[in-house]
Amino acid sequence: MEGLDPRFRGGDIDARVFMGLLPPQEAKSLVVVPANAHAAIAEACAHHLRDGQVIVLNPGRTGGAMEFRQVLKNNGSTCRVLVSEAQTLLFTCRISGPARVWVASIKRRVPLAALPARDTKRVLEVLSPIYPQFTAAQDVLETGMDNIGAVFHPSTVVLNAARIESGVPFEFYRDMTSGVARLLEAIDAERLAAAEAYGVRATSAREWLERSYEGIKGETLYDCIRSNPAYAGIVAPRSLDTRYIMEDVPTGLVPIASLGRLAGLDMPATVGLVNVCCAIYRRNFWEEGRNLRRLGLAGLRMIEASVLIRGS
Amino acid sequence: MEGLDPRFRGGDIDARVFMGLLPPQEAKSLVVVPANAHAAIAEACAHHLRDGQVIVLNPGRTGGAMEFRQVLKNNGSTCRVLVSEAQTLLFTCRISGPARVWVASIKRRVPLAALPARDTKRVLEVLSPIYPQFTAAQDVLETGMDNIGAVFHPSTVVLNAARIESGVPFEFYRDMTSGVARLLEAIDAERLAAAEAYGVRATSAREWLERSYEGIKGETLYDCIRSNPAYAGIVAPRSLDTRYIMEDVPTGLVPIASLGRLAGLDMPATVGLVNVCCAIYRRNFWEEGRNLRRLGLAGLRMIEASVLIRGS
Repeated sequence: MEGLDPRFRGGDIDARVFMGLLPPQEAKSLVVVPANAHAAIAEACAHHLRDGQVIVLNPGRTGGAMEFRQVLKNNGSTCRVLVSEAQTLLFTCRISGPARVWVASIKRRVPLAALPARDTKRVLEVLSPIYPQFTAAQDVLETGMDNIGAVFHPSTVVLNAARIESGVPFEFYRDMTSGVARLLEAIDAERLAAAEAYGVRATSAREWLERSYEGIKGETLYDCIRSNPAYAGIVAPRSLDTRYIMEDVPTGLVPIASLGRLAGLDMPATVGLVNVCCAIYRRNFWEEGRNLRRLGLAGLRMIEASVLIRGS
Repeated sequence: MEGLDPRFRGGDIDARVFMGLLPPQEAKSLVVVPANAHAAIAEACAHHLRDGQVIVLNPGRTGGAMEFRQVLKNNGSTCRVLVSEAQTLLFTCRISGPARVWVASIKRRVPLAALPARDTKRVLEVLSPIYPQFTAAQDVLETGMDNIGAVFHPSTVVLNAARIESGVPFEFYRDMTSGVARLLEAIDAERLAAAEAYGVRATSAREWLERSYEGIKGETLYDCIRSNPAYAGIVAPRSLDTRYIMEDVPTGLVPIASLGRLAGLDMPATVGLVNVCCAIYRRNFWEEGRNLRRLGLAGLRMIEASVLIRGS
């Protein structure tokens, strides 16, 4: 596997470079797709992997590496591959055309963990000559539970559902209201509590805003979101058929709620929001999303899940 | 107790007549208040009741008579009163000024049940000379589970929460969207299933629209709501502090979900919506609302609850 030209600092590139597909042709390890496609990718490549191959979900969202490994297993793959996930996408970028990506910048530091965590060191040894930006996270719970999109996106879509369907344009973040922000805070608090139950100190939404942007001001999450200059002009989705639900519910809220409940927490706001989404979309997100079975944790106690995740 | 002049067909009246307080002064049996005030009324009158007195919650919403009786018990009342509830308010009316009510019309037929149901006949004997409109319902589950406001109101407020807080005016029913209607349908289906579990055939939201209004057309609840000419001009609440939540969640969704769960149903959309409301409002509606304890059903199995409700 080879990466970008080390002198590259941004610009328009071939999507295959972006995904680690070029050059050389045989290096097929970087998986850069919406997280709800990870299972399909795992299924497609289950019989084409080699022992020792490094797979990087870039990023994994919540439970990406766990789901990927479980799909390989379900498909009879017997290779000993190293499955890992990044906490966020290495690039700040947008699609610019068919198979072209506009890279605005490359992040300086992105936490990454393998499953189990004792393999993280080996994965980083392979990656560091190409992508020195990746650094060791504690485990895939640390990379997975810092899923800020799952906090911000589904709540805001659901509490704006009728306005989105009515076709009235509005700004997704700048038109934040205090009631929506209270739901975000409840979802965020449950996520932090679930992470803590597994010994992971996750980043709160407010901390994340303060770290990621300049000019964040205020005591409440509501004030912080409204004060973020970088959010100006980000319009709301034009339809309820948006990845803010279709990706963030099954690969964010569902695994966060499922892991929290395995740890004995009630997770009422998170469970409630997923249930409401199931009704609005007439889909069973609990079944199609990353539930404990899809994460390979079915029937395990929390302590057994932790051992499986850490490898010790 | 005396009622309105039998020749009265509508108009502006003294609110005390409306509540059965005039004349004569001592007749204090009609309780015509938002349902979240029933417990306070019960507490206030617990030591001023007489054996055999008839109490009519007009209407009771879901579980009104059960909560009323439990509050009397909790306050040490030892009177044998006949607590009953109407399915809906006898009058179509709006407040017209301090202690004045504008009565647009008097409904032709309003189902009523006592708690337990074997007392319904006695209550109707007392009421029929004054209010012949009251007819016998099967039991307080039949009057209570036909709570259509609990289906229409909280879902529509929550899926419009940000728009309401933003102060953008819109029509509450006529601006219905298909996503909101799918949530209404899920909540409605769970309510019907819960009623059915207790042997009650509740009225679906669509049936109710067709019975209550002229000109309802369409296959789906969405079409039926949008087609209702009577909904034209009904504007949305101007704030999240609205009885569409403050009354309909604690005295509608909470008892419907609680009774459904006692019957072994999951009630996911209803539970989910209440949980989301708890987060948005930072209130524990499960605790302050009509849960099984407040309904006097704590620790009972479903069959025991049914016996208590029916008295046989």
